[in-house]
Amino acid sequence: MNFESLRMQAVQPPIIPTVAELIRQTPGTISLGQGVVSYGPPPEAIEQLSRFLANPTLHQYQAVIGIPELLQAIEAKLAAENGIGGAAQQVVVTAGSNMGFVNAVLAIADPGDEIILQTPYYFNHDMAVRMANCRPVLVPTTAEYQLQPAAIQAAITSRTRAIVTVSPNNPTGAVYPEADLRCVNALCQIHGIYHIHDAAYEYFTYGVPQFSPGAIAVNQAQTISLFSLSKAYGFASWRIGYMVIPAALLSAVQKIQDTVAICPSVISQYAAIGALQAGWPYCQPHLKTLAEVRQICLDQLAQISDLCLVPVTDGAFYLLLKVQTEINDLELVKRLIREYRVAVIPGSTFGLTGGYLRVAYGALQPATVAEGMGRLVAGLRGIVGS
Amino acid sequence: MNFESLRMQAVQPPIIPTVAELIRQTPGTISLGQGVVSYGPPPEAIEQLSRFLANPTLHQYQAVIGIPELLQAIEAKLAAENGIGGAAQQVVVTAGSNMGFVNAVLAIADPGDEIILQTPYYFNHDMAVRMANCRPVLVPTTAEYQLQPAAIQAAITSRTRAIVTVSPNNPTGAVYPEADLRCVNALCQIHGIYHIHDAAYEYFTYGVPQFSPGAIAVNQAQTISLFSLSKAYGFASWRIGYMVIPAALLSAVQKIQDTVAICPSVISQYAAIGALQAGWPYCQPHLKTLAEVRQICLDQLAQISDLCLVPVTDGAFYLLLKVQTEINDLELVKRLIREYRVAVIPGSTFGLTGGYLRVAYGALQPATVAEGMGRLVAGLRGIVGS
Repeated sequence: MNFESLRMQAVQPPIIPTVAELIRQTPGTISLGQGVVSYGPPPEAIEQLSRFLANPTLHQYQAVIGIPELLQAIEAKLAAENGIGGAAQQVVVTAGSNMGFVNAVLAIADPGDEIILQTPYYFNHDMAVRMANCRPVLVPTTAEYQLQPAAIQAAITSRTRAIVTVSPNNPTGAVYPEADLRCVNALCQIHGIYHIHDAAYEYFTYGVPQFSPGAIAVNQAQTISLFSLSKAYGFASWRIGYMVIPAALLSAVQKIQDTVAICPSVISQYAAIGALQAGWPYCQPHLKTLAEVRQICLDQLAQISDLCLVPVTDGAFYLLLKVQTEINDLELVKRLIREYRVAVIPGSTFGLTGGYLRVAYGALQPATVAEGMGRLVAGLRGIVGS
Repeated sequence: MNFESLRMQAVQPPIIPTVAELIRQTPGTISLGQGVVSYGPPPEAIEQLSRFLANPTLHQYQAVIGIPELLQAIEAKLAAENGIGGAAQQVVVTAGSNMGFVNAVLAIADPGDEIILQTPYYFNHDMAVRMANCRPVLVPTTAEYQLQPAAIQAAITSRTRAIVTVSPNNPTGAVYPEADLRCVNALCQIHGIYHIHDAAYEYFTYGVPQFSPGAIAVNQAQTISLFSLSKAYGFASWRIGYMVIPAALLSAVQKIQDTVAICPSVISQYAAIGALQAGWPYCQPHLKTLAEVRQICLDQLAQISDLCLVPVTDGAFYLLLKVQTEINDLELVKRLIREYRVAVIPGSTFGLTGGYLRVAYGALQPATVAEGMGRLVAGLRGIVGS
């Protein structure tokens, strides 16, 4: 009996559970693996729970695209901070921005269609595209992990349905400048395809502006923007985010989300209302701490500049190292865990070959990150430098 | 520009939001539409929230397939109540049983593959199969809405990947006897395909036993069982359910769920732990009330036995009426809402032609159901009987 579908055989296994299992086997390991923040949600989020619990009808299903109160709060935020809005656009609350990406791909692409991803890609994007029987077309970024618009243009064919950009980027931390994102918008306009822009890390920038390609009115009919609430507000496990889609896609997205989820968890939607009330001022001090942690990471990695390249990027909470080694990246990760008790994510999961490693510095206290980075530096010196 | 994918154009629009909008336009309408219960979750579920909130690390992502404590509680329930368990089977917590069905279809079927559904089908099953670019193959049930194993067998081809059964059934309320479900198991065994059994309504039976086809050891490698927690425990909006899969499918299901949801909302998982602690004794009095409500519905419908057939089924909280009329069913639903202020769901959404209407009697207090049924009886008498 043939157990799995061919489509799922073509999808890579999720890396996070694999690394988590390796960590479990080696107690005391410091994880620079998973992309979450160290802080929890604001008190305003938790305060909303009593309001949710006070209304028994809220235990029943609510609207597929989100409850009106949360939609309004998101619309206000988008207008104030992103310049996104208007009658031609529709906000849809999702159970995390991964669900937003799956909604987008299924809504616009058929089997055999092509979706352009930049490498290194966010692994769940590659997985979603293959799961939908579409073909990921990979366009490399520069040595500094920036977009290459000419290469993107060259990759467009008659089967292309979308160009995906993630800024600030997972796994590189790169923040794409406005000019490049406008360039992607223009390519989508010319070729009649969609720009799927993942802005899950929009609040995580260090001294550079973050640009929303969905703000450009003339491109809005072809731009799908994905946002997370769980990243900035520290409640990843509540699974809540949102997407902004051209109104013409509402019917398709509604069908998908109804079939997959019926509606995003309503208690999480109430917490999201509270998080948006707290807003950016809640996140700001945490981001200041993160900027310091980032500097600790960069300083430590400077000690092994003979062993690895670390392009300095300006966003998210990731650094992507290129290690000068012939050792297989997963093997390197296993040895770092077993011999040095520090976990990072292998670059192969992001579509890279060669010795790439992703460092995530958002989830830990500064002192723990410093200790973890010390182990990483010692580990790379010990394994690769010998 | 061609907005939607072809795959989504082939998927029916979700009916519930459509009917909800009609209800909104006619204030005072009693809804016998949506399939939820009137009661909320047990206090034990809400009590778990403080335990969840007391541990800040629970705001971060947890395991893709569910937190260990909930998995253990589910395993204990499955062993005690369903006779399901063992090393060859794997429990996966899902954000509702709809997500479990999508996980199952993507895990086992490729584009062009066939999935056998019984008509009338649960609309989200039809939608999920098409969304996955598979072909729903429709096998009619009997006039009493029971399975027709010979017809199912005749529908199996080399492209068939699964037979889907829902018992107790949405939209008919039919409960399938053990012999028929064993028959489906056997067909799956012979043909090397899967039996996807949706038991979301397992607790909702009226005087007949409910059988779990996943309990038959010899068939477990080919049985996928879907369960809901939100139905019986009255917290649909929290989006929590689970599936039991053959261990060989774990890798595929983990890839899918990681890509779509990363993990089911963890606060909802804690509530689910509390719900399972309360268990069947919490649901029992509510089910007693539902049995009375069901009798009210049947008694009222007996008044219009000249206008419609109402096969008496023994489960869920649905009755499916076959009205003797040439009026289009959606038109009939619209007129019932506008002229008689009572809402039901048209049979076309379940793959039926002719004047079928689904009555859902779970969401309302007995007096309101009685009033709503009175309006339905008057409405059908007025519209169809004239």
